Amino acid sequence: MTDTPVHSGQPASPAPTAATAPSRRALIGWGGAGLALGAAAAGGAVAVARSVDDTEPAASGAGGAIAFHGIHQAGIATPVQDRLHFAAFDVKTTDRAAFVQLLKDWTEAARRMTAGRAVGEGAYGGLAEAPPDDTGEALGLTPSRLTLTIGFGPSLFEKFDLAGLRPEALVDLPKFAGDNLDRNRSGGDLCIQACADDPQIAVHAIRNLARIGFGKVVIRWSQLGFGKTSSTTPDAQTPRNLMGFKDGTRNIAGTETDRLKKFVWVEDAKDADAAWMAGGSYLVARRIRMNIETWDRTSLQEQEDIFGRDKGEGAPVGKAKERDEPFLKAMLPDAHVRLAHPDTNAGATLLRRGYSFTDGTDGLGRLDAGLFFLAYQRDVRKGFIPVQRSLAADALNEYIQHVGSAVFAIPPGVRDKDDWWGRTLFAGTPGGTNDPKEA
Amino acid sequence: MTDTPVHSGQPASPAPTAATAPSRRALIGWGGAGLALGAAAAGGAVAVARSVDDTEPAASGAGGAIAFHGIHQAGIATPVQDRLHFAAFDVKTTDRAAFVQLLKDWTEAARRMTAGRAVGEGAYGGLAEAPPDDTGEALGLTPSRLTLTIGFGPSLFEKFDLAGLRPEALVDLPKFAGDNLDRNRSGGDLCIQACADDPQIAVHAIRNLARIGFGKVVIRWSQLGFGKTSSTTPDAQTPRNLMGFKDGTRNIAGTETDRLKKFVWVEDAKDADAAWMAGGSYLVARRIRMNIETWDRTSLQEQEDIFGRDKGEGAPVGKAKERDEPFLKAMLPDAHVRLAHPDTNAGATLLRRGYSFTDGTDGLGRLDAGLFFLAYQRDVRKGFIPVQRSLAADALNEYIQHVGSAVFAIPPGVRDKDDWWGRTLFAGTPGGTNDPKEA
Repeated sequence: MTDTPVHSGQPASPAPTAATAPSRRALIGWGGAGLALGAAAAGGAVAVARSVDDTEPAASGAGGAIAFHGIHQAGIATPVQDRLHFAAFDVKTTDRAAFVQLLKDWTEAARRMTAGRAVGEGAYGGLAEAPPDDTGEALGLTPSRLTLTIGFGPSLFEKFDLAGLRPEALVDLPKFAGDNLDRNRSGGDLCIQACADDPQIAVHAIRNLARIGFGKVVIRWSQLGFGKTSSTTPDAQTPRNLMGFKDGTRNIAGTETDRLKKFVWVEDAKDADAAWMAGGSYLVARRIRMNIETWDRTSLQEQEDIFGRDKGEGAPVGKAKERDEPFLKAMLPDAHVRLAHPDTNAGATLLRRGYSFTDGTDGLGRLDAGLFFLAYQRDVRKGFIPVQRSLAADALNEYIQHVGSAVFAIPPGVRDKDDWWGRTLFAGTPGGTNDPKEA
Repeated sequence: MTDTPVHSGQPASPAPTAATAPSRRALIGWGGAGLALGAAAAGGAVAVARSVDDTEPAASGAGGAIAFHGIHQAGIATPVQDRLHFAAFDVKTTDRAAFVQLLKDWTEAARRMTAGRAVGEGAYGGLAEAPPDDTGEALGLTPSRLTLTIGFGPSLFEKFDLAGLRPEALVDLPKFAGDNLDRNRSGGDLCIQACADDPQIAVHAIRNLARIGFGKVVIRWSQLGFGKTSSTTPDAQTPRNLMGFKDGTRNIAGTETDRLKKFVWVEDAKDADAAWMAGGSYLVARRIRMNIETWDRTSLQEQEDIFGRDKGEGAPVGKAKERDEPFLKAMLPDAHVRLAHPDTNAGATLLRRGYSFTDGTDGLGRLDAGLFFLAYQRDVRKGFIPVQRSLAADALNEYIQHVGSAVFAIPPGVRDKDDWWGRTLFAGTPGGTNDPKEA
């Protein structure tokens, strides 16, 4: 009589989604679907007209999926995707077991979404009387190289009485010259970075993780990024930031194993104060507002002097090509490239993974635009902090302002299907387990 | 001695960019570039090491450009691009001649950018002592199907004493049930809709137009959209909105000449009160916030009842396939599809071109997300207004709120290289001209 899909009578996913509100419409029967739903509501076995697999995106299994499992989390050395949705969360529960369960549920959802699959039973695969497990807007889309990367902020260690496990390398950032931080865009007990080539995929992922965390965590702030500014693929064309300059010329490439090992990944032998961080990294996130209207009224010569590179090719001062080795002394003393260069900062080198943003206007007719700076490093004390201190003299500071700031410990990767985000931190504590097979 | 680019001594573009600030660095000579610049500054003829063509994006001329010239403006019947940057402006000048000059300058910039070319002399093609004509972040990118579409708001006609030319079809929108409008996200003397497959291209276009308008116009509000929700290409997969439902199934396709003629394009014979609008249209923009956290806790059955379609396939109630003709009486009386359907509204039909948005969080831990609704129509009184009145009873209203609103007259297309945006409105007034060849 009708081809309206019949919903599976399978139980909903174990993910702790929000409480099922009774539907004022659930008992209204129309057509065959109503009859089937009536049977399901009565607990009877109904014809399963759609298997769980049917709840997956049509393109599931198609190209474009990045492996979720590994020694390191994906989304760091992974070639940079086009779009970002970054969210910082405050944790509302002090129940460590409940939080560990959330980490496990999140891991399972992340595992599915990065493979291009819907959360749980999908957007229309569960009980009709229950909210769908997945919000649905990613149905039919490809995985779009989605990566999900979790981080733990300093405050999380306090919240769960884990101060003894807080790595020394995870320092609170000092106040830097020129900081004008908005606390509503700063900090957070944890973060999730979602990167994908399709923004709908990144937004879908954060939204569904937030939903799974309902009652335990709440989004503190979030940021969309639309134009990657740093490349971790050295052969690709270097993207331009909103100042019109190439950004990321000398970035660490995902294929540079030696530089990744030296500057990005934590090794347990050498960073013994936090053995649980082996294979992890540290992330500094800064929301950098650009005064683009002022910048746009600055002469080309001054713009190039400020950066220490020319605008067209991106070549360092006095050099011909973008990738020529910069000769720092040819640059003005306050040139950005000179001050940010490892030679100026005892070798400090960051893996940058920032995105441009434009968040409408600021109420004064100016675009609220800039760079959402994301930098991964092995030790914040030897990475972002010395570089940012050096940049106190940066000529660029006349045109930018840091308005948001956060720092996170990025735990190692999820090794296999039995592993979960944060296990090495929580395994030895009540609520966790040392045996991932028990998880 | 150096390969640093030597800048052309050609005069900068006629576009009225911001005043040239004297550079504190312009006279600092380093290497050969400094010498060349010195010559240029002295007004001497210098070697032109880069022609104007070099200032164009590397991919200029490559596929992906949408024709700017035509009877209608592009960006309406054009197949919907992936991304949006929409800006509403307030006009700060009352000098009609100055405004007409701006319209001409904007037209020339739009003509260049939609072809994948930089504004004026480009990002590094003018005088080094002057701000570049183009902000540069689109260098090396393809046109990405950029369209730029201008519209004039009711207040513009007051501002320039053109009330007699204001079309009757451009009515001020009445207050609708449930409206909760933020005036900082509403209205505007004019608008520019930038659509492109690459957001950096759309943002670049609005930014450069705003820059050209410095001193004459200021951005009142702007909106980025990342996921198109309505398709004007009937054979493509229908995109999903942030409620997870397919959106735009029955939209007017860009190829449906008859429906476009009937519902979208103004004809001068039949809309005689504003002959200057022949070939134009009217745009209603509404920022519709979705309470997605509440929606996500609603049962699948209720979600489907509210829309009147099933979530997976998108089929109307009781039907099998998305494109099956809806049987409205099978739906609940307050189902969205039923109330929005032309049969319920004396045939009223809109060309929808909306985008999803996610603008961070709202300070209460909820995503500030929803639909930026854009609807084109031949007459607002026979299009959006009756449909929106009908939707006062919409079951969906429990989950959405209209928080921004604006209406614009969309003038006809720019016919050729001598024509300019708004000529038919301003041509007969002082400061305009009846002869586009004189423009």
